[in-house]
Amino acid sequence: MSLLSIGTIAYDDVFTPYGEVRMIEAGSCTYIAMAATHFVQPVQLVSIIGGDYNQDFLDGLKERGADLEGVEVVPDGKSFFWAGRYHDDMMGRDTLDTQLNVLADFNPKLPANYRNADYVMLGNLSPQVQMQVIDQMERKPKLIALDTMNFWMDIAMEELKAVLKRIDVLVINDEEARQLSGELSLLKAAAKIVDMGPRILIIKKGEHGALLFDGDKIFSAPALLLPTVVDPTGAGDTFAGGLMGYLAATDDTSFDNLKRAIIYGSAMASFVVEDFGTRRMQGLDKAQIDARIQQFVELIEVKF
Amino acid sequence: MSLLSIGTIAYDDVFTPYGEVRMIEAGSCTYIAMAATHFVQPVQLVSIIGGDYNQDFLDGLKERGADLEGVEVVPDGKSFFWAGRYHDDMMGRDTLDTQLNVLADFNPKLPANYRNADYVMLGNLSPQVQMQVIDQMERKPKLIALDTMNFWMDIAMEELKAVLKRIDVLVINDEEARQLSGELSLLKAAAKIVDMGPRILIIKKGEHGALLFDGDKIFSAPALLLPTVVDPTGAGDTFAGGLMGYLAATDDTSFDNLKRAIIYGSAMASFVVEDFGTRRMQGLDKAQIDARIQQFVELIEVKF
Repeated sequence: MSLLSIGTIAYDDVFTPYGEVRMIEAGSCTYIAMAATHFVQPVQLVSIIGGDYNQDFLDGLKERGADLEGVEVVPDGKSFFWAGRYHDDMMGRDTLDTQLNVLADFNPKLPANYRNADYVMLGNLSPQVQMQVIDQMERKPKLIALDTMNFWMDIAMEELKAVLKRIDVLVINDEEARQLSGELSLLKAAAKIVDMGPRILIIKKGEHGALLFDGDKIFSAPALLLPTVVDPTGAGDTFAGGLMGYLAATDDTSFDNLKRAIIYGSAMASFVVEDFGTRRMQGLDKAQIDARIQQFVELIEVKF
Repeated sequence: MSLLSIGTIAYDDVFTPYGEVRMIEAGSCTYIAMAATHFVQPVQLVSIIGGDYNQDFLDGLKERGADLEGVEVVPDGKSFFWAGRYHDDMMGRDTLDTQLNVLADFNPKLPANYRNADYVMLGNLSPQVQMQVIDQMERKPKLIALDTMNFWMDIAMEELKAVLKRIDVLVINDEEARQLSGELSLLKAAAKIVDMGPRILIIKKGEHGALLFDGDKIFSAPALLLPTVVDPTGAGDTFAGGLMGYLAATDDTSFDNLKRAIIYGSAMASFVVEDFGTRRMQGLDKAQIDARIQQFVELIEVKF
């Protein structure tokens, strides 16, 4: 089944206790594509970049199975840029700089062959831009998933609520779930969020795994214990990419398959944080992914 | 198999966003006993109280299968008292008052029939007192588990390190594991802590579940999602009580059984936080426990 993904294709400066990198290729759409193309091809990307973007990197994405027809290039524009520094505990981070550049005037236009995509991943962008993608779909996709963040809850809550009514899966972290719902208990938060529109809620808890809510059914996915997290940037997007790539490849949105998809997403995220940017994802192969899935299975196996 | 447990039998004042209680029966030994007696009887208690302690409550513990021969009563003394207020997020808490009272001069003396206990739970007390219990055992128990806290790491690290060399299982929370090891990664922390003595490490992560480390094997246990946590006091002790009660009852310290024991401990802890003090534990029966174990199993069930 076809997968469409919207998000940023960006340059990042990242500072962590393990080192620093400047102007590396990053962005939510990039991370989603790097993960999802392991499961389904092509992944139809919708984004915007300046004429300054690394053409070799874009060619690499194409070779992996990304369709870049929906990526608008503004020849005399600059690509979106973000800089951030992670705290010593690797949990908190400070944004040092954000330059919207070409993203400031992004009005996505979907190529004709994108408009009947079966699976749609709306990466973290303004709810208005996310809504523009939904509006351009010719028929209702089988599953629309959306990622967002507290920033949009602060400045565009009404627009966010409008787009929540039109999606199937919301993917957010625990802090964002609490902010969106006003509830401390994630159980109560989930009930309120489902009332806002999405049938399925996935709450990411970083080093504590993830929770899946589907009707009255709940799945608690573990996180793998890693000796070292070098750079957490893109973990959430990579999770979403693995999740949606697996769902599109298997074309099965049952609770049992959603559980497997979350483990695949978690496995992909566990790789990306092992090195800066997308470096760890470059040489990743199926055998490595399968071995890691097995690690997740063993981590939670218990018999009564 | 017999289970011996040391810890406090105390009075608590507890303030949470859901209400407040004063002078309720509490303490680590109490919580451990309330949980463990569901699995094994008698549970041999070692503690100290003043003449002020509620005799009806003590009689109730006896009826449940606790052996109170090892509980020293100081007729003109006052029982240990703790008062604390939980923050609105129910995660942090402030200690308002601590009165050691009879605990200040506690030198546990084990009754003769306690000295060949098979399973020993050393609840959170000074490492020196915990060591006195080990020293009085006539033969090496099958399994000694120890709970401690950052307070003892701050003021009695050398004594704590000495007792760690003589135990089999250390039960601490994630923050304490990081403090004890000086490592941020729980994987690295576990390796360092195992080098200090305990063969098995259990890291409690509150609402995020628990981790079990046994050699190179790891188990990640989920926490149940609760609509409301009324009072988190005693959750860790209740977890330890369920864990050790189940291990003593089954007399099996294999990795597979340790995993089941952690689920039983987690289930018991999920009950105790539903009401203040030991209230929720009072009417608890086997059918309720079994139903909750099933909830844990369903929460992590995934098939590939």
